[in-house]
Amino acid sequence: MHAYRTHTCGALRAADAGQTVRLSGWVHRKRDHGGVLFIDLRDHYGITQCVVAQGSPVLEAADALRPESVVTVTGEVVNREPATVNPKMPTGEIELRVRELEVQSAAEVLPIQVAGEQEFPEDLRLRYRFLDLRREKQHRNMLLRAGVIASIRRRMIALGFTEFQTPILTASSPEGARDFLVPARNHPGKFYALPQAPQQFKQLAMVAGFDRYFQIAPCFRDEASRADRSPGEFYQLDFEMSFVTQEDVFAALEPVMQGIFEEFGGGRKVTQAPFPRIAYETAMLEYGSDKPDLRNPLRITDVTEHFAGSGFGLFARIAASGGVIRAIPAPGAAGNPRGFFDKLNDWAREQGAGGLGYIQFAADGAKGPIAKNLEPARTEAIRAACGLQPGDAVFFAAGKKDEAPKFAGKVRTKLGEDLGLIAAGEFRFCWIVDFPMYELNEETGLIDFSHNPFSMPQGGLDALNGMNPLDIKAYQYDIVCNGIELSSGAIRNHRPDIMLRAFEIAGYKAEEVEARFGGMLNAFRYGAPPHGGSAPGIDRIVMLLADEPNIREVILFPLNQQGEDLMMGAPAPVDAARLKELSIRLDLPPAKGGPKGGADGAPGKGEAKATQPADASGPKNA
Amino acid sequence: MHAYRTHTCGALRAADAGQTVRLSGWVHRKRDHGGVLFIDLRDHYGITQCVVAQGSPVLEAADALRPESVVTVTGEVVNREPATVNPKMPTGEIELRVRELEVQSAAEVLPIQVAGEQEFPEDLRLRYRFLDLRREKQHRNMLLRAGVIASIRRRMIALGFTEFQTPILTASSPEGARDFLVPARNHPGKFYALPQAPQQFKQLAMVAGFDRYFQIAPCFRDEASRADRSPGEFYQLDFEMSFVTQEDVFAALEPVMQGIFEEFGGGRKVTQAPFPRIAYETAMLEYGSDKPDLRNPLRITDVTEHFAGSGFGLFARIAASGGVIRAIPAPGAAGNPRGFFDKLNDWAREQGAGGLGYIQFAADGAKGPIAKNLEPARTEAIRAACGLQPGDAVFFAAGKKDEAPKFAGKVRTKLGEDLGLIAAGEFRFCWIVDFPMYELNEETGLIDFSHNPFSMPQGGLDALNGMNPLDIKAYQYDIVCNGIELSSGAIRNHRPDIMLRAFEIAGYKAEEVEARFGGMLNAFRYGAPPHGGSAPGIDRIVMLLADEPNIREVILFPLNQQGEDLMMGAPAPVDAARLKELSIRLDLPPAKGGPKGGADGAPGKGEAKATQPADASGPKNA
Repeated sequence: MHAYRTHTCGALRAADAGQTVRLSGWVHRKRDHGGVLFIDLRDHYGITQCVVAQGSPVLEAADALRPESVVTVTGEVVNREPATVNPKMPTGEIELRVRELEVQSAAEVLPIQVAGEQEFPEDLRLRYRFLDLRREKQHRNMLLRAGVIASIRRRMIALGFTEFQTPILTASSPEGARDFLVPARNHPGKFYALPQAPQQFKQLAMVAGFDRYFQIAPCFRDEASRADRSPGEFYQLDFEMSFVTQEDVFAALEPVMQGIFEEFGGGRKVTQAPFPRIAYETAMLEYGSDKPDLRNPLRITDVTEHFAGSGFGLFARIAASGGVIRAIPAPGAAGNPRGFFDKLNDWAREQGAGGLGYIQFAADGAKGPIAKNLEPARTEAIRAACGLQPGDAVFFAAGKKDEAPKFAGKVRTKLGEDLGLIAAGEFRFCWIVDFPMYELNEETGLIDFSHNPFSMPQGGLDALNGMNPLDIKAYQYDIVCNGIELSSGAIRNHRPDIMLRAFEIAGYKAEEVEARFGGMLNAFRYGAPPHGGSAPGIDRIVMLLADEPNIREVILFPLNQQGEDLMMGAPAPVDAARLKELSIRLDLPPAKGGPKGGADGAPGKGEAKATQPADASGPKNA
Repeated sequence: MHAYRTHTCGALRAADAGQTVRLSGWVHRKRDHGGVLFIDLRDHYGITQCVVAQGSPVLEAADALRPESVVTVTGEVVNREPATVNPKMPTGEIELRVRELEVQSAAEVLPIQVAGEQEFPEDLRLRYRFLDLRREKQHRNMLLRAGVIASIRRRMIALGFTEFQTPILTASSPEGARDFLVPARNHPGKFYALPQAPQQFKQLAMVAGFDRYFQIAPCFRDEASRADRSPGEFYQLDFEMSFVTQEDVFAALEPVMQGIFEEFGGGRKVTQAPFPRIAYETAMLEYGSDKPDLRNPLRITDVTEHFAGSGFGLFARIAASGGVIRAIPAPGAAGNPRGFFDKLNDWAREQGAGGLGYIQFAADGAKGPIAKNLEPARTEAIRAACGLQPGDAVFFAAGKKDEAPKFAGKVRTKLGEDLGLIAAGEFRFCWIVDFPMYELNEETGLIDFSHNPFSMPQGGLDALNGMNPLDIKAYQYDIVCNGIELSSGAIRNHRPDIMLRAFEIAGYKAEEVEARFGGMLNAFRYGAPPHGGSAPGIDRIVMLLADEPNIREVILFPLNQQGEDLMMGAPAPVDAARLKELSIRLDLPPAKGGPKGGADGAPGKGEAKATQPADASGPKNA
């Protein structure tokens, strides 16, 4: 008989009754029923009820076991009494009558419980992560993550993609965020950087002729932690394709995403490919966001014209000064008491808006403070424009052109939630396309890249030479699910001439571009294929599937929010001799109150807005 | 029609004749045959011959193309004349008559050629790696690597293993080699370390109850470069299993290794599982190495007793002083001229040995300097012990107990090669088992761990308490293929009591052990399963399959031997402001002649001998 087990703790069934078997696992629960000891023995695969009879020679040893001790038990499989069969457990028909018991590892008193639903502080859980991971939800989340990644790999390989490992010790990259640096011992004064993304390497793989690359790629950004971003490393499904249009990229990724969400979504409805394509401008107008949650059925309408020159002075003035007024419908909300509207008004003020105007379309006509001042024909025009029925209400987000649309998006989300309109149990995907290549920097009055200077402008060199830069769109796109941006992506600019011109428009001299991005430019001078790709965030995909808002719940051994590994004790001080070897020494800031003062500090803020060539797995505007 | 291609450059066949198609790719070769231009167009999938007819409107543009330019061509597929069919090319039956040609990317004059077999200096190749990778062998090696890794994953998952990602930003580990360090910006004075291996994490995954873990794991060691080790990062098939014996680990890995080598070995013969298990002591005796190349049929015999007290004074004295004499057979070598033996003697002196004695067993009796002095009965006893026939010779490695056996191994390899005995076209696997737990430190006279202090001693606590430490074996093992150690591995010591006792024998106080390895010890106190694993090196597996002695030939974007990425320019200097942010500053050594002085320097040497708990993908004794 095997030293540890003939079966796993999830394997035995009624058909096994009569067999002598051996199981090993953790003591999940222990119950004493009048001198008979019941042990729920747990392993990776399941739980089996083990029974130590009254008077058994192993009873004393079994009785002494603390929960989470590891034991090996040997004995006969017997069918349970019909009354004690547990149909919820796969092994619920049988139990194991323990004849021999060997303690493999006696557990001390536990700092956190494994069995049961008790909550524990996150830092305690992370310090004892090896215990925390034994708990059912955590165990399930990790297997979900592993399953998702394995399935993505299978699907990508089936589509003809090849997985490559790109370097982790590499050069500092021109991406927006901050790199982690690694002193190079044999090159005093020089440093490697950990890759923020394998962006340049995947493009070079295309230049090298590999056609379809992917990688479940570890990426590193030294940024402040957020609920949906780990402080340090994260993984993305990094992929790139040669000789493709934007639609080819979509056609490659869509079946993978649809397939993954159908395979692991637990029956939740998934958008069928092709996913809707929504132009950036349309998204900002109708959803007030470039990552719209399509589970929310509400659509925003521009009603500036209806307020321009109207009797409702506040909005008329906004319209006159170049501002906009956006209408967000609230179906069936007309009949709500005053308090409903007042509360939303308070919420709007908390959000920094002046307030939240509204019209109630009651059965007997339009009501509310705005309706009182607005000409009836205009009120009717707004009703018609928004497709409202008697019984509906409408709210207005009014203000500056670059503020009101986003606020309208917030109102849309708020109303969707408050009115219970968000379709539960669905995964709604879309692509946001046609991002503007450039934007006006309001402060400097100069033209900046909107997002990614390395995307191919739509229309190529002709567009750059002939169009108003602010009208030029880029072959850049985001994939969004339930309001979460899973990734940016782009058809890349593979032509040095077009790239230099694109930078020129944004005020960069050729020398500057060559100095900063010479590596890629140079590679493109020896025969580069048209190429493009994207890089959906793995952690976010798993968060969506697991319905976990906290990224640490889908990572095996995560750093805490302060970027510490409490279990392994990282980061840690290092001997001066080790630093000397690396040709560095400490240059500590003056001592302050607490050692962790800067952990959630400001530095990450606003950075992601900088030049960002990589397929970012996350919002571009933090 | 698609903007870039209707087919790949490897797709078209005779059956496609008559179709109008579009291809995109690189101009591999161009030939002008009397005004008709032939272009071999290459992409990831193959090469297609494209023909631009005399007088074609695109002839001028085609003629101007430099090799490696990227073009899109459109035209009709036509069958080649029977005389010009190329049966060596999958597309050799057809050619494409170019009607339209679009230049996607014009190539400048190339620093290294892609077509052809010309050799280029490695640093030039690495600087233009995106060109180098377009060459046939490099392209093939990368696809081999990707195929091997994908197949390993498939096989491991089919065996019930789950792949997890362990942290890359983590704590400095107690392994033997030097860590790469990463300053933690938010924790002034503290550093993360990159993992030398996920050793502790995989063990913690077992303690967390995950049963069967694997990972194609990036590992990092700040060590001097070697032909078979990249300076920086490398990958291993890291795996670990719970509730297993050593034989279970072997049974899990063997079909994966056999399968991979059969799948990608190009028909070369592969050892069938179960692989031979060879005790460390036997390996050192019979092969003179703990990583024997079993393709070499020669076996070493200990013949000390036959020389003890014999007439051959030199060896008699060695035997008398506690030394050993090992005999290495040379089948069929008796008839070789004197020069053959003299040359081997010279070689032995180059290796630091005193010389290389031998006996020739000619048809008419034993010959050579030793045979002259040795009693005939002893000569005959040696012949019999080594199983030699008339016509064979035998060589002797004589010396100190810890030197002669290893030198005998070198002689065995040398003879195997010189006599052409190494079986070509085979992959011969074995396990080396029963490594000693401890060894005597000759300098201090104290007892040290032999290799891995975290392996379970055979016999457990009883053995530690009752046996001579030097007689205790560990559940530690190496997997070896063709003389290359692919990995160490072990059944781990999961019991704090046994671990503390094991360290005590090696002279460590409990406080010391708790201080250095408290993390793991602590985890083992809350219920740890018996567990074990191994971690075969991915790069080495691919090197064996690709028959490449240089590890950089199987890595997509390798660092050079000095640890530099010449393409991306890493490592690189960093702004003082960035360092300030990280609370470090430079502490440069006094200026010397060259900037790269230390790159291949001494520091790595001898370190791997230190306490090494991880499954090392590589020789333990560098």
